[in-house]
Formats: sequence, structure tokens, C-alpha cells
Amino acid sequence: MKCAIILAGGKGTRMKADCPKVMCNVIFKPMIDYVIDAVKEAGVKDICVITGYKHEVVEEHLSPDIKTALQEPQLGTGHAVMQARDFINSHKDDKILILNGDGPLMDAETINKAYDYHEENNNSITLISAIVEDTEGIGHIKRDENGTLLRIVEHKDATEEEKKINESNAGCYWFNGADLLYALDNITNENAQNEYYLTDSLEILINAGKNAGAYVVENSEVVLGANDRKQLNDLNNIMRRNINTKLMLEGVDIPCTDGVIIGKDVRIGNSTVILPNTIILGDTVIGDSCTIGPNSYLDNATVGNNVILDNCKILDSTVENDVDAGPFVKVRANSVLKKGVHIGNFVEVKNSVVGEGSKSAHLTYIGDSDVGSDVNFGCGTVTCNYDGKNKWRCKIGDGAFIGCNTNLIAPVEVGEKAYIAAGSTITDSIPDKALSIARARQVIKEGWVDIKKPYKEKK
Amino acid sequence: MKCAIILAGGKGTRMKADCPKVMCNVIFKPMIDYVIDAVKEAGVKDICVITGYKHEVVEEHLSPDIKTALQEPQLGTGHAVMQARDFINSHKDDKILILNGDGPLMDAETINKAYDYHEENNNSITLISAIVEDTEGIGHIKRDENGTLLRIVEHKDATEEEKKINESNAGCYWFNGADLLYALDNITNENAQNEYYLTDSLEILINAGKNAGAYVVENSEVVLGANDRKQLNDLNNIMRRNINTKLMLEGVDIPCTDGVIIGKDVRIGNSTVILPNTIILGDTVIGDSCTIGPNSYLDNATVGNNVILDNCKILDSTVENDVDAGPFVKVRANSVLKKGVHIGNFVEVKNSVVGEGSKSAHLTYIGDSDVGSDVNFGCGTVTCNYDGKNKWRCKIGDGAFIGCNTNLIAPVEVGEKAYIAAGSTITDSIPDKALSIARARQVIKEGWVDIKKPYKEKK
Amino acid sequence: MKCAIILAGGKGTRMKADCPKVMCNVIFKPMIDYVIDAVKEAGVKDICVITGYKHEVVEEHLSPDIKTALQEPQLGTGHAVMQARDFINSHKDDKILILNGDGPLMDAETINKAYDYHEENNNSITLISAIVEDTEGIGHIKRDENGTLLRIVEHKDATEEEKKINESNAGCYWFNGADLLYALDNITNENAQNEYYLTDSLEILINAGKNAGAYVVENSEVVLGANDRKQLNDLNNIMRRNINTKLMLEGVDIPCTDGVIIGKDVRIGNSTVILPNTIILGDTVIGDSCTIGPNSYLDNATVGNNVILDNCKILDSTVENDVDAGPFVKVRANSVLKKGVHIGNFVEVKNSVVGEGSKSAHLTYIGDSDVGSDVNFGCGTVTCNYDGKNKWRCKIGDGAFIGCNTNLIAPVEVGEKAYIAAGSTITDSIPDKALSIARARQVIKEGWVDIKKPYKEKK
Repeated sequence: MKCAIILAGGKGTRMKADCPKVMCNVIFKPMIDYVIDAVKEAGVKDICVITGYKHEVVEEHLSPDIKTALQEPQLGTGHAVMQARDFINSHKDDKILILNGDGPLMDAETINKAYDYHEENNNSITLISAIVEDTEGIGHIKRDENGTLLRIVEHKDATEEEKKINESNAGCYWFNGADLLYALDNITNENAQNEYYLTDSLEILINAGKNAGAYVVENSEVVLGANDRKQLNDLNNIMRRNINTKLMLEGVDIPCTDGVIIGKDVRIGNSTVILPNTIILGDTVIGDSCTIGPNSYLDNATVGNNVILDNCKILDSTVENDVDAGPFVKVRANSVLKKGVHIGNFVEVKNSVVGEGSKSAHLTYIGDSDVGSDVNFGCGTVTCNYDGKNKWRCKIGDGAFIGCNTNLIAPVEVGEKAYIAAGSTITDSIPDKALSIARARQVIKEGWVDIKKPYKEKK
Repeated sequence: MKCAIILAGGKGTRMKADCPKVMCNVIFKPMIDYVIDAVKEAGVKDICVITGYKHEVVEEHLSPDIKTALQEPQLGTGHAVMQARDFINSHKDDKILILNGDGPLMDAETINKAYDYHEENNNSITLISAIVEDTEGIGHIKRDENGTLLRIVEHKDATEEEKKINESNAGCYWFNGADLLYALDNITNENAQNEYYLTDSLEILINAGKNAGAYVVENSEVVLGANDRKQLNDLNNIMRRNINTKLMLEGVDIPCTDGVIIGKDVRIGNSTVILPNTIILGDTVIGDSCTIGPNSYLDNATVGNNVILDNCKILDSTVENDVDAGPFVKVRANSVLKKGVHIGNFVEVKNSVVGEGSKSAHLTYIGDSDVGSDVNFGCGTVTCNYDGKNKWRCKIGDGAFIGCNTNLIAPVEVGEKAYIAAGSTITDSIPDKALSIARARQVIKEGWVDIKKPYKEKK
Repeated sequence: MKCAIILAGGKGTRMKADCPKVMCNVIFKPMIDYVIDAVKEAGVKDICVITGYKHEVVEEHLSPDIKTALQEPQLGTGHAVMQARDFINSHKDDKILILNGDGPLMDAETINKAYDYHEENNNSITLISAIVEDTEGIGHIKRDENGTLLRIVEHKDATEEEKKINESNAGCYWFNGADLLYALDNITNENAQNEYYLTDSLEILINAGKNAGAYVVENSEVVLGANDRKQLNDLNNIMRRNINTKLMLEGVDIPCTDGVIIGKDVRIGNSTVILPNTIILGDTVIGDSCTIGPNSYLDNATVGNNVILDNCKILDSTVENDVDAGPFVKVRANSVLKKGVHIGNFVEVKNSVVGEGSKSAHLTYIGDSDVGSDVNFGCGTVTCNYDGKNKWRCKIGDGAFIGCNTNLIAPVEVGEKAYIAAGSTITDSIPDKALSIARARQVIKEGWVDIKKPYKEKK
């Protein structure tokens, strides 16, 4: 069985955040979520997160299946892992993965390949290492002429020759459970910082005659972390590029990726076009041959095929096939735009169902309403769903015609094919096929402008 | 006389598109359009497109002056060209250009320089070649020590030495008509794929004692094609950079090109500023000293000088000098905003003429209307142009004042300098300089709130 | 004492601008402003700008503490500096900095380090130089084997060996006042262009036995200028990257910098997130833990903590803590959104104060109004602030409820906790806790649709 320990205790001082470092977002999601997702995807079942700085924030965020152990005070990575001693004890005969909670680019493939390497070489400890360009400050992986792992040389202790070694310790490991316990028992804090370093495990286990190895990742980006917001931006860019490239290779058309941010869990169909500056998050699913954007924002949206969303914000709602919406539209939670609905500029839909083929072309608010099919909303229609105390619903029948600037004072029902004259405030329900009108008669006062002079004199 | 054959039969499987590959868009236009434009710009009059996969989509798209020939089934590039045998027969004494329909960066200059090279060297066949960085999979152009073209060595057949040749066959050619016919008669499908390769022409013609050469393009980007949507994104980026750079060198101010996508045919005047995330397409023409964007979208718009378009979508319309529009404005087809018009936030104009100096500052819909000069639209004005059956027009005279939240029930005429009180629904035409009002008198019920308690209790 | 001369006379022909080159914008501000800011930040008090082409545009733009001298006609950089002879005479015993007005990336640190170098070496003249990659067309800094400055070799006069020198003269200098005067007296126009070159000063002063040196800048970008709009775009990109990086290192979260343009004087607090395509200019100050963008535009805004601005345009206004606004909102000059205000989609606020906790969720115009706390604006509310001649104000008391599609005909007062029925046009002030209603009674005509057939026949 495989299990994992994820280090998540750091404050990340240079982030200048008021949350623990692992809670800093990459593509709108805390870094630790990506690490946990990768670990789970690799088939690792039991996970223990080591918390520290503002541990309650991490604890509240984690799903209940994740165990935690608190490190307080924080005395090094070895000390962090020691806090999970009970967890490790229960996995004495298992393989234990140790990862950094702030390394969101780690993936299941790397985890599994490192595991295979660990097993094939019958290792007690397998480091994960990466070939890097900038060797400043890294832990250099020293090997003998046969490639056998000798030790980690910290940059400050390295000779000029050793400083040229561009294989870097990533701080990620596979351990045999019992060997990890043995190593933890022998790590001391006899060093300049008086801290317990997990890296010491390597020499401890080698000295104990155990097998040790280092698995070199194929793509060194997977081990990147972030210490400040500039590096966080770098991680965002890499993640963004990876996701966008994957989608393009799957058949999604992204002519220009500027400002296109798509979450890792989003699914998008063939020949759908994503236009610039479009953010798509959460569990959003989009069908084929849609045009999404520019400047759209979708979160937890379910979108069908052949849908156009131009300058739309769609939250927790469903948009069926052949819907055409925008520009400048907001659809708030719990809304359904059924097949072929047209929503035009400056329209908001909230907590409503809009039936097939219904149209609301401009300047309208459809809130808390059940709208039938083929309804036509005139420009400026308002469902007055709030009376100062409660929210009420409107019900509008199939084929109804709502004249411009109509107020529907909820609760109210508009019958099928009912017809409301423009400018009416509707307080009473309207039967099917009835006309309803509520407006004052027009009065004309001829010559009034010459008498009253309501206009500014032109200079 | 010069003529051209364009290969456009491929499906482009890795695009995962439901259209032929040449119909995939670069900057909102099918790739084949760029190729045809370049060919025409190079002075080539007679063009034959070889179609194949979903040929009817290509045929419908092409303008009537373009000939087509259908390749079915698709048995290689040589086979493709064979389908145009009648076309070639009619150009026996001409020079024939062969291009890939999915190479949208090809330009007239390259076509003409390759032609000049073909003529100056009295060639029967001239390959177009490019120096490339990545030689994986290319057709290596093998020359002798004098630079004389020997043959094309396909990557899989190349020796280690030949694999280092970084001159790549682009798959584009100038042929003498009669020589092309001769080559086609001699190309066989005796190879692993059982296909007819146009590249075989080279050896056939050399063996026949003809002159052959390869013209190396100055900028290797011009021969790029796309096999998947990632590469399509690359082509978009190059095209976008080329167009934006050309405009900047002509005097257009683009402080930040992020999300700026401008079509190849768009013309923009000096000192006009294009702000980020602005898409300008079609035959749009923009004058001098405008500010367009951020977040604007123009398609087939004619824009004068000193115009401001901030967060505007403008389709098939004319915007005259000194217009100031936005943010959040839509102008739909067949509209004219005359000199000095001001259109503010959340205003839509459709199929209307708005006269000089007229103002509509907020939350208004002007549809199917003829608006005079110096008209003032109050906030919330709606031209009610649709009665459930037909669309009607409004006519509004010079200098009229339309009070806020007015409904103009079309067809209706508002006279010059007429004055409409806020909140009126206007069904009857109003004479010049008349006041019109249509609203109920205000009633006040004192103490009502204490009796009715319409508000939520504050906790 | 230190003083400075800034060269700002050039037309910048290739910019194709209708303003002097130094008035071309980088991040929405003329290039010369950055140069003056850097000079002032370096502690240089007395500044003289040499104007030329369209000098009046520069003169009008400069603040009154900046002196100017006009160069007409323009006969070289030496000639330009000669026009400031009075200025130099008054600084005979001072150190004089000479900078290009079109080098907006110059910074105070470089100016001061070059000054220190000038002083430490007891120089008469100190050139500022930069190591460059592209040596085409540069003035090569020729030194002897000890690094002692010998002369500047213009590219066209350089030997092949000299052309390899990649230290370039930046055209920026520190002079001793008296030495500059001496040099100017000896610069001639005996050259191919018949112009007076400031670079000749170097040889003149060396020949006079004076000390001369070249200070090499640490980051060669600081000496970059722009000759065309493409290079202007390059300067914008560098400036943008510098500002964004600085903000990120200070704790601002910018997950994606695409389209993010932030002015140099803007201040932003910790953990505030800036989303793509957001432009923040002027003296804007933003607090901690806000989310600004996407697609927002702020100019001279004062924003508190925990504020959300989504697709908002905010001009010259104050937004207090915990305000949530957008998407699609405009706040125009002189507005205050007090603590906890909510402004939703398609709402415009202009020249108004909106009190604590008040809400305007949709399709509303609040103009020239004083709004109390906890007011609820129904959808479609319009403050009718203009009567065709004058603008008037509305006053709305704490806790009032404004029904949907209400018109408030200013000047009018709505009392505290007053309640306005939806669809009312309010012309008279409403006492506290009163209900006001102004609408016609609803009439229903049953069976009207069957008689009148107002709908299109369905095919």
C-alpha cells in the first residue's frame, strides 16, 4: 500500500499573504489542492498533511478524508515529518511518499515513475531530483562515476566542482515506512540552524547499508515551488500553458491565449472556440462548436453545443444547446437557459428557468422566475422579485409577450400567449391570451416649449 | 501568364475539426483565404483549388472566380495535382504555382521572388525551401558542393550526415506547365504508402535533363502550416504579431498587444490608440487619433477621426468623427452615429441613424429609429419597435428631449424640440415643440410603513 | 548642487505622431514625465528642458517649476544644449546632468550612481554607457587596456575590430558646469551633417587635459529610447513588467499579467488580487485583500480593503471597505461608495454619495444624488437629474425602499424608510416612512389575443 505525507506548515513570509503558503492560489485554487489531486490520481489512498502556520485555515479547507498533524514550532522538514509518527507507524510496511504542499505542478505520472524506480531498485529511500539551469542555492545530487547516489551537497557547503552539478534535490521522496522511522530516530539538530533536516535521512540510511537512489524527473517544471508572488505568477503561467496546450491538442480552438485561464478540471468539446480574456473554472463542462468569450467568466457552468457566450458571466447554471447570449450578460446561480434561448445585452438572469426559444434581447432582469417557451421579453422588463422583506417568484406562460419596460410585481402569473402592453406595472395575474395594460393616457400640450422654454439657450 | 493550384483536400485529423483543414481559422478567417489573397496579390489570375474532404464546404466558401477539382479518394500530393489535369492542360505554356492551402503565412513577395528565381534560372521546376531549426521529419534539400539541387531526402531515409541538412522542402513549387504534365505522367505509387508524391517530380525532371532549383525563403515563417490546434495557435500568434507590428510602424499606438487581434484587411490611421483585448475584423477602417478599446470588438465598422470606443461592440455600422461611446455599448448592423454623438453605458443602437451631437448617456435602446441632431435621450428610454408581429420605426426630430424611462411605441414621430416627461409611454406622435406626458399622478400615504411593516426586522 | 538639462526637441518622425516625440505615451503618460520624475527623485532640483518641434505642447504640459529653452532650428545635440547657455552659466560651479527626454526607463539610482562615479573620479565629463547585444549603429566606447576612456567611435567610422565593442554611448552625461561651457564653446559643425554634436565634448575635454570617464549602467534597459511605435511598445512592455514584478514582490497577487497595465504611482496592498486585462492609473490607491478585475479600469480611485471590482470603470472616486461592485459598472467622478455598498450589473453612479450598506443590484442610474445608508434600489431605478436645462440633485433617506423602474424627478427628497411602489414616477418629495405610488391601475382584456391576433403565425 502507498501513503503520502504532504508538508504544508510554512508561512511563506515572502508571499506577504495572510494565509499559509500552501493556501496561495494557482489558477484560483490553493496550491495544496493540486498536490492532493496528483497524489490521489497516482492511486495513493492515505494522506497526512503536516500543518503549522495558521493550521486551522488548512484544516478547514481539507476534505475530511485527509489526516493532519500539527507541527508547532517549526524546526525543519525532518521535524515536520516527525509530527506524523503515528501515521508512519501505521504504515511501517508501506511505501511513503513525501511531497511539498507548495509544489502544485507535481503530477501522478512522476509520482508513479518514481515509485517504480524505488521498487525496481529495492530502495529504502528514493529522492526525486531534477536537472536545473540555475544551480544557485540548490542541494546538489552527488553521484559516483557509476551514477550511484552518494549524498546531497548543500550549495553553501559545495566545492567549486560540486557547484557545477546541475542535478537538484527536489525535496520529494519515496521511503519504505520502517526505514523512514529509523531515519527519523537518527536525525539530529546539530547544525547551524538547530533544525532537523529530512535530507539527513539519505546519509543515515546509506550508512545503515540501505539502498538509496534518486529518480530524475523528465520535465523539471513538475518540482517547481513558489516563494514569492512573482514565482507564484510563474507557476500560474506554466499551469495555464499546460492546460491550454492540452485542450488545443484535444481539438479546442484558442486563437489567442492572452488572458485565457482555464481550470484543470474543466472539460471542453471539439471545435469550441475560446476567445481572449476568458476565465473558465470549477466543474464547468462545455460542449462542441461553441464560441466562448471574449471576456467571459464561467464557474461551474454546464454548457451544451453550439452555444455563444460573448462577454458573459455564468455562475452555477446550465446553458443548453444553441443558446446565444451576450454581450454583457450575467447569469447567476440556479438558472437554466433552455435550448435556443437568446439573451442579449445588459440582461441578468438569476435563479430562473427560461424555456426553449424564449428571447430577452436587452436591458432586462429575470429573477426568481419560471419562464415558458417562446416568451418574448421587451426591452426593460423587470421581474420585481423583492418587496423589502421577501423574495417572490414570477411565472410566465409559453408564448407570452411582455411589452417593454414592464414591471412584473411578484408573485404574479402571466398566462400563455398573454400580451402585456409596454410600460405596464403588472400586479395581478393575467389569464391566457388576455391583454393587460396599466398605463396612463398620453396628453399633449401644444406650444408648451415656446411658453416654458425648458431648453438651454444655444450660444 | 501565371496560374496556381492550391491543395485543399486534407481532413487535418489532428485538428479534430468538423471542417476541412484549410477551413480552420487564423484570425477569424479560413487559412485558404490567406493563400488565395497572397496568390492574387502576386498577380496570379487563374486559380484551381483541389478539394477533397468535405469538398462542398470549401466549394461553397470560395468565390466564383476560383476553379476547383475534386480529389477522391486522396492518394497523395501528386495525385491531388493530377485531378487538375484539365486546368494544367490549359496552362501548358504557362508557369504554374503549387501551394498548400493550409500555409496562410505565404506572401506575394515570396511567390514573386520564387518566380523570378524560376525564370532567371530557366528552371522546369523550382522548389520553395526554408532553413529550419528543427529538422525532425523534414524533406532535406540535398545540394552538391556548388549548391546545385540534387534531390530531396526524406527524413526517414536520410543518413546521419543528411539529417543535419537544415534546408527543408516547403511543398510549394513553380513549374513550367508542360514539364508539370510530363512529371505527372511519370509519378508512380510504387512506395510504402502506395501514394503519388509530387516531390517525385524533381527527380523525374532532373532525369529528363531539365533545370531544377530551390528558392530559399528569406523568412522561414512564410512556409509554416498547422497540423493541430496548438500549431494553429502558433500561426495565429505569428500573423497577429506581423499585423500589429506593421500597424505600429505605420503610426498606430498599441501600448500593450495582449488580446489585440486585428484582421489583415483592417486600416487604421495615425496616432490612433488600440487598447488591450480589442478585436478588429473585416473591412473595418478607423481614422486618426481615435482611442479604441479596451475590450472592444469591431467588425466591418467605418470609424472617423477622434472617436472613442470603450468596451464597445460595433457591427456593420458607421461611426463618424468625434463620437464618444462606452463603456458597455453595442451598435448593431446598419447604424450610423453621426458627428459628435455621445453614447454612454449600457446603450444599444440597432439599425438606426443618430444625428449630429445627439446624446444617449445610459441604459437605453435605440432600435429602428431615425434620430435627428441634438436629441437628448433620458436614461432608460426604450424604442418599442416590435409588437409581437412586426418591427416599426420611430422618428425623432432635432432637438427633442426624451424624458427618462420613456417608451416610444413605434411607429411614432416625435416633433422637433418636442419634450417628453419622464416615465411616459408614448403611443401618439407629438407635434414640434409640444410637451407630451403620460403618467399617473403621485399619491403619498403617510405613516404607511409603520402600519404595513414592509421591511425585514433588523437583527 | 545638481541640475539637469533634458533634451526634448525632437519630432520623432517615425512615430508619425502629431505631438513631439517626448510627449508620446508610455503607460498612458508622456515619456518626458518619467525622465523628470527620475531626475527629481535623484535629488536634482533645477531642471531645464530643451524644446523644439511643437515646443508649445511640451511647454504647456510641463509643471511651472521646470525651465525651458527653445532650440530652433535643430542643429544637433550640442546645439540643443547651447540653447540652455544661461541655465548652464547659472550652474557654472555645479554638476550638470544631461538626459534624453525620450528615455523613460532612466531611474534615480542610475543617475546617482553615475554622479558618484563622476565625483569619485574627479571627472569633468562622465558618459553613461551600456553593454548592448546589438551593436549596429551605436557609438562604441573605446577604452585603452586599463579601461581608461579614449573616445567614442561612431559605428560608421569604426574599424571591424571597433565594431565588436559592445559598450554603447547612451547619450546621457554628467558634466562639471564650467567644463560643459568650455566644451560648448569648442564644438563645431564641421562634419558631414553640419550639426553640433554633444559627443564632441568628450574629445574636447580630454584634449584640454580633463578627466573623462564612462559609467556603465547595471541594467542596460534604463537607457533605452524609442524611435517608432514598435519600440514604444517595447518600452511599454518593459515598464509594465517592471511595475508588475515590483508589485508582486510586495505581495500583490497577479495570477496572469495579460493586459494588466498599472501606472508607476499606483499603490496596492497585500494579498490584493489583480485579474487580467485591468488598467490602473493615476494616483490610485488600493487596500489589502481586494479583487480587482477582470477587465476593470481605475483612474484616480481610492479603494479600501476587501473590495471587489469586477468589470468596473471607476474614475476619480472613493470606494470604501467591503464594497462589492460589478460586473459591468461605471462610477464617474466625485462619487463615494461607502462601506459595504453593493453595486450590481449595469449600474452607473455619478457625482453621488451612496451610504453604508446600500444596495443597487441592477440596471440603475444614480446621478447627482445623496443616498443614505441601507437604501435598496429596485432594478431600473433612474434619478432623472437633467431637465433639459439644469442638473438637479436627489436626496434619499436611510433605509428607503425604491421600487423597480422608479423615476425620481430631481430635485426631490425621499424620506427615511420611505417606500416607493414599483413603476412610479416621483415628482414630489416623500415624508419619512410614507408610501408613495404613481401608477395606473391594471386593466385585463380577456380573449384579446384571439380577437386581435397580435402574434406572427408560426410556420
